[in-house]
Amino acid sequence: MDVSLLVQGVIEGDRRAVARAISLVEDGAAELESLSAGVFEHTGGAATIGLTGAPGVGKSTLAGELVRLGRAAELKMAVLAVDPTSPFTGGALLGDRVRMQEHATDSGVFIRSMATRGHLGGMALAAPEAVRILDAAGYARVVIETVGVGQSEVEVAAQADTTVVVLAPGWGDAVQMAKAGILEVADVFVVNKADREGATQTVGDLKQMLQMGPPRGWSPPVIATTAIDRGGVQELWEAIEEHREDLDADGGLAARRRARLLREVETLAAERFRGLAAAALALDRALVADLQARRIDPYRAAAILAERAGIA
Amino acid sequence: MDVSLLVQGVIEGDRRAVARAISLVEDGAAELESLSAGVFEHTGGAATIGLTGAPGVGKSTLAGELVRLGRAAELKMAVLAVDPTSPFTGGALLGDRVRMQEHATDSGVFIRSMATRGHLGGMALAAPEAVRILDAAGYARVVIETVGVGQSEVEVAAQADTTVVVLAPGWGDAVQMAKAGILEVADVFVVNKADREGATQTVGDLKQMLQMGPPRGWSPPVIATTAIDRGGVQELWEAIEEHREDLDADGGLAARRRARLLREVETLAAERFRGLAAAALALDRALVADLQARRIDPYRAAAILAERAGIA
Repeated sequence: MDVSLLVQGVIEGDRRAVARAISLVEDGAAELESLSAGVFEHTGGAATIGLTGAPGVGKSTLAGELVRLGRAAELKMAVLAVDPTSPFTGGALLGDRVRMQEHATDSGVFIRSMATRGHLGGMALAAPEAVRILDAAGYARVVIETVGVGQSEVEVAAQADTTVVVLAPGWGDAVQMAKAGILEVADVFVVNKADREGATQTVGDLKQMLQMGPPRGWSPPVIATTAIDRGGVQELWEAIEEHREDLDADGGLAARRRARLLREVETLAAERFRGLAAAALALDRALVADLQARRIDPYRAAAILAERAGIA
Repeated sequence: MDVSLLVQGVIEGDRRAVARAISLVEDGAAELESLSAGVFEHTGGAATIGLTGAPGVGKSTLAGELVRLGRAAELKMAVLAVDPTSPFTGGALLGDRVRMQEHATDSGVFIRSMATRGHLGGMALAAPEAVRILDAAGYARVVIETVGVGQSEVEVAAQADTTVVVLAPGWGDAVQMAKAGILEVADVFVVNKADREGATQTVGDLKQMLQMGPPRGWSPPVIATTAIDRGGVQELWEAIEEHREDLDADGGLAARRRARLLREVETLAAERFRGLAAAALALDRALVADLQARRIDPYRAAAILAERAGIA
């Protein structure tokens, strides 16, 4: 494969090139490094929006509404639905995509589900690379929607300029929210399905918890939406834009992006050493025997591999 | 803290020592390496059972039933409920623990929820260390129940001798199951809440898909249970025991445990290098500037750090 041609296609915004490039990311293909090198200088134009929440709260409908509002503002819009390749969410994923089909014929919209089966480091590494491809292709906003509800998924959604946490009415009580650490992750809260019973209570609980927390430069708004009939979504769009502008005004956006980039480099470096450690272990029958006989524990074995590589 | 005293307490089966040791794992404490070194030689007696499935399928009730059946066989039983510290599952976790309270006063039972906020490498590293502590403390079976439903959670559940995947009736169709990769992860399938409509269909779909897949040495059984009134749980217990005995008979159990251990050492080694890479990046303003200016992409930056450390 000619990666430079593929890169050229991506930066020209060719949809087939973008789709193919993201497939390379999914597969963890050998061409990934040159693809990454080729697109990187063309990135930086996109703003990213992480959208996370439990199954059934209406994330995909909200993503579809954000696409609609972005298009109304003449912005090229992308949605990257990150599928953890979990055994339990495959069904939901297929169904959800259908709800965004109103945008299927709009050339200014790109919607893509991504699984990360082949990618070393999983979603944590695959998602930012796919986002950069969409960024280089000229999409002004990239919505990163996570499908599963676990540690990795929340981390991926938190890797955005603005992280939107979606709840539905009746979701637990305020103490549980605080205990679960939800307050720290979100820049914007959405209580979707706000026409349901308990919505006012959920909004109130959230606001109260936020007031009890430590003061922050940005106070996360709590927005009630009924995405299915477009209620509150304009307010959500504006809150997202305002959050990013607010963050940008005092240098926080650049700092957040920088921290994200350095963290990614560290993870890529760690994955490189994993490969070396695996190869070294495969050759060292004595060390493996010591492990199996429980003479050397895993932490000590890792330290031995590091010492031998001269990095201890 | 005197870690050797703590290790002594763990191997004597002292419950407070076990609880405290698992807290050290959760926190990613500095004492972790000496704790690991101390307990490792006392491990190897426990069989591990991974229990995973979407929220609401009844995993905790099943875990409680496995504890009951294990106790009837005079085995010391432990349940480790791994909480991904996700914002969305905190509530479920609290409720689920209550269902296992019938065992709260039994000194042969240890039930513990574990979050992994402070642990480098998250659940993938914390869970096996916590399991070894329970193993060293003499628990004959350790049930690892994952609370979230994402990539990390499925990986953790798959790190057991026997992985049990729990479904409820009405869970998608067979094609989606195959697409989502569920068939590869499970050693035993459970269709819980089997008194509900659609249970026969779900069991049938699963069996058909398993027949269509590639032949395996072990054919995963599909067991219908109604855990809430103990229906089918004896059959589940026997299937788990049979799976492990079958695996052990041809050396597969030792191979699985060995592969798990090596993978863990590789991850620990990778995390060590992550720390070094982070420190190197923090000192290298020129490299960070090149990254921010998009002159050097993340993959190349990681390669540079590896080359400098002499491990490229």
